[in-house]
Amino acid sequence: MKLCRVAGASGPVYGIVKEEDEVVALAGDPFGAHGEGEVIGRLADLTLLPPVIPNVFYAAGLNFYHHIEEARRKGNMKAVVPQRPDIGHRANNALVGHGADIVRPADFEGRLEYEGEIVAVVGKTLRRASREEASDAIFGWTLGNDVSAREWQHGDRTMWRGKNSDSFKPMGPWIDTDAQPMGEDLSVIINGVVDSDYRLDGMIYDAEDFIVEITRYITLTPGDMIWLGTDRTAGMQVGDLVEVHVPCLGTLSNRVVHEILHDIS
Amino acid sequence: MKLCRVAGASGPVYGIVKEEDEVVALAGDPFGAHGEGEVIGRLADLTLLPPVIPNVFYAAGLNFYHHIEEARRKGNMKAVVPQRPDIGHRANNALVGHGADIVRPADFEGRLEYEGEIVAVVGKTLRRASREEASDAIFGWTLGNDVSAREWQHGDRTMWRGKNSDSFKPMGPWIDTDAQPMGEDLSVIINGVVDSDYRLDGMIYDAEDFIVEITRYITLTPGDMIWLGTDRTAGMQVGDLVEVHVPCLGTLSNRVVHEILHDIS
Repeated sequence: MKLCRVAGASGPVYGIVKEEDEVVALAGDPFGAHGEGEVIGRLADLTLLPPVIPNVFYAAGLNFYHHIEEARRKGNMKAVVPQRPDIGHRANNALVGHGADIVRPADFEGRLEYEGEIVAVVGKTLRRASREEASDAIFGWTLGNDVSAREWQHGDRTMWRGKNSDSFKPMGPWIDTDAQPMGEDLSVIINGVVDSDYRLDGMIYDAEDFIVEITRYITLTPGDMIWLGTDRTAGMQVGDLVEVHVPCLGTLSNRVVHEILHDIS
Repeated sequence: MKLCRVAGASGPVYGIVKEEDEVVALAGDPFGAHGEGEVIGRLADLTLLPPVIPNVFYAAGLNFYHHIEEARRKGNMKAVVPQRPDIGHRANNALVGHGADIVRPADFEGRLEYEGEIVAVVGKTLRRASREEASDAIFGWTLGNDVSAREWQHGDRTMWRGKNSDSFKPMGPWIDTDAQPMGEDLSVIINGVVDSDYRLDGMIYDAEDFIVEITRYITLTPGDMIWLGTDRTAGMQVGDLVEVHVPCLGTLSNRVVHEILHDIS
């Protein structure tokens, strides 16, 4: 199943992307009993939203060797290979869907960078999971761009605006419950040209490792998600169309725009 | 209005605490049009849940002078008076209500400490708020205990388990939409004896300051909340009944218990 979420007349609705890009409504609970409702429309005509809004939004910190080496080369000597999954959080306000703009804050003057990632979405309630239970609890996969305003990220005590300003977490286009992305490559394409790519199996800790570690202390619930980190990051300019692509998951496309300020008194 | 949330037969329901501790159901949207429904029961007979589950859970870092001095005295020289509101996040999984247990993780061997705080709950959608708009957007106030496992907090790269393990964020007992707590004292009472207290007006940045700063980059939505930091922190032992008290907001009571592990294979 390809689970999407679209803007409906009276609010967001879950949909299922079918053959030839027809979207039908999902009737019921996407993580529980559900069936197919009526046709909503064609994918190209709909506004895609983040495919799920989690109760808690987890994100890996350092999880690829090249990314750690690069951070050290840039002078961040705190970047070392983690001895256990490096768990952080992101904030729901920053989530936007496929096709939405990434808004560069008007007063940010530094480097706005992409981090293309795969995202594991949890489908069960679980605590103290074994690796097998963790694997069973993965509902599906999608793509994310962990947009980062580097000078804010490194200058502030937390990542509240450096990684969590509105629109900094594009996600989608949908959650694929059948895909197996771990053997594939992730590429980031800027204005139609591959800007970087990396092998997903180069991940230091996988989704199961994160779920086992998190659930030692924390209950995960359906819809919670884990962004698994990146091995490549680089700058984005205003006007760029930035696409995160994994063959079995499709393409997440977002354009970088300037923030436009109206009526600031 | 005193807005609470209680465990109902088919899930959580919002309620309103009336005279003589009778709770009636809230019909409608607590942040929008609503009225009173039927009587649910008496407060003492109901299980109180966290009075709201936010889309995003904000928390002040350093926001009182004594707390900063104390942190420096303990050797944390990064603790300095912040030049602007010091904004962080906490995670919804950790929220529990008045009367719930604070569970000390079985494998945590260090200092488990309380941080009694007031919590401002946002009632409107707002971005780029003026101070006046920020003030208008405060829906009400409640109490929180920002439970902290200090060695984890300081040893991990993030606060994922040091401040966000299950049950580490007791909150309640209800949201009071009429109270004005800023002129009052907050006390933490352990087993019936005042363990510490501080003046809330000693806060460096108030709720309006936080809302103005957050909304420069971020959209706040109804139910989002800001925990405003503490000026006093100290240890809690297993068995302690820990109460956070502000006269106009009531008392948030939680007992510290050991984690009990069953059937770990």
